[in-house]
Amino acid sequence: MDIAREAAKKYPEDLYTLGPLIHNPQAVELLVKLGIKVKDRIEHIPRGTVIFRSHGVFLKDLMKARKKRLRIIDATCPIVKRAQLYANYLHRHGYDLLIVGDSEHPEVEAIRSYIQKRVDVIEDAEAAQKLGSWTKLGIIAQTTQTFSRFKEIVAVCLEKTKELRIFNTICHATTLRQMEAVEIARKVDSMIVIGGYNSGNTQRLAAICRESQPCTYHIETAEELHPRWLSKKEKIGLTAGASTPSWIIKEVELRIRHLKHHKR
Amino acid sequence: MDIAREAAKKYPEDLYTLGPLIHNPQAVELLVKLGIKVKDRIEHIPRGTVIFRSHGVFLKDLMKARKKRLRIIDATCPIVKRAQLYANYLHRHGYDLLIVGDSEHPEVEAIRSYIQKRVDVIEDAEAAQKLGSWTKLGIIAQTTQTFSRFKEIVAVCLEKTKELRIFNTICHATTLRQMEAVEIARKVDSMIVIGGYNSGNTQRLAAICRESQPCTYHIETAEELHPRWLSKKEKIGLTAGASTPSWIIKEVELRIRHLKHHKR
Repeated sequence: MDIAREAAKKYPEDLYTLGPLIHNPQAVELLVKLGIKVKDRIEHIPRGTVIFRSHGVFLKDLMKARKKRLRIIDATCPIVKRAQLYANYLHRHGYDLLIVGDSEHPEVEAIRSYIQKRVDVIEDAEAAQKLGSWTKLGIIAQTTQTFSRFKEIVAVCLEKTKELRIFNTICHATTLRQMEAVEIARKVDSMIVIGGYNSGNTQRLAAICRESQPCTYHIETAEELHPRWLSKKEKIGLTAGASTPSWIIKEVELRIRHLKHHKR
Repeated sequence: MDIAREAAKKYPEDLYTLGPLIHNPQAVELLVKLGIKVKDRIEHIPRGTVIFRSHGVFLKDLMKARKKRLRIIDATCPIVKRAQLYANYLHRHGYDLLIVGDSEHPEVEAIRSYIQKRVDVIEDAEAAQKLGSWTKLGIIAQTTQTFSRFKEIVAVCLEKTKELRIFNTICHATTLRQMEAVEIARKVDSMIVIGGYNSGNTQRLAAICRESQPCTYHIETAEELHPRWLSKKEKIGLTAGASTPSWIIKEVELRIRHLKHHKR
């Protein structure tokens, strides 16, 4: 978001992002107000500056942008970048590559785009069980995966390969957030998870909280907060996905305080 | 054993093994009959031929034997040799090394002797939990460890390192034997495990069988078989550690058949 704001000041004209900058509709709306246009394809960007979003960019889009001589601002998250580098490293060193993650997530798709070979992407140990065996297997994870899932998959693969090389590319901030959210969910009577409905990491966050606290609700904005969720509840917990802007979190917090105050 | 028999034919004089050839007193006795003497230290071997046993040889003993110009017959098990090579490879490539195994076992001690650096040796996940964290960690296993323990330790270490490189050095034959033994233990009324009392892999085999079949008995020879263990038992299961000679297994089998026949 900061990079986009900076870019809007520096290059106010013909500024584009390739795909929504982050998985949060409200933040994207704010960017539109700054004059940043969202385009899904490089072909639709005629000239000017393109911002590559935090999830990373596909190899073919990078090539096209270069060919078109667009000004490139790479806002790929450094943690995501690291995952890309490790994936390439493993591939170049003769490892079959397995990514723990969601095969349709742009981050995973971007990582795969740089590798000229079949890459398996799986989400759980059951899927790992169904795969064949390997001689040399390299494993990385989508940065926002849960560590427990990563661990389960590694355990299954260990049984089916002679050499296993693992780079733990899970974002430490994401892991911390998940652990803290579970801690909170255990102690409260109702848990609110804020973040885009299409955000995988927010979905996982909600799922993890729900395991400890059945009264867990996933919302995108303060308006969606239902008074019924809070009634007769003493303690309300709050957490948010990685790409949720802080002003949305603040709004939700204010609305919760407002609703609780009214009840009393 | 075959290598030792061959050696006894070829070099009948001044033939030694460095330490007992395998962890089975009865087999060792047989070797003594062939004129093969057991010495615990290279210093006690004046001349002639030395056989290095299946567990491998310590670096310092290898150096001493070479210096003394002894004829060397290396009977190190190829699976153990592979574990040694991987340990060295990981060490040379800048990994901290962790061995899943028994720190006092000669196989593990031999592996460590080639590495001029601290090597952690642990037997369970709890011990792994107590260790610090690493940047680059390499893990191998003593060849006769159980896979489940290996897996548990890997899961713990995964959490504490950025890069994890694992060579599964567990002997496939050992794993198969363990799996088959459990299958048998489940189906019988009494389980007999044959092998040296000081053999780690036989101890583990007995422990695994005991989990499925409380009536599990670890013996070294047919003479130790107690008639009471078989009385009122319909089905008797039989398995043996890696270094148990086939003639001992045959003797136990005959004695079981004899005892069961008498009862009827």
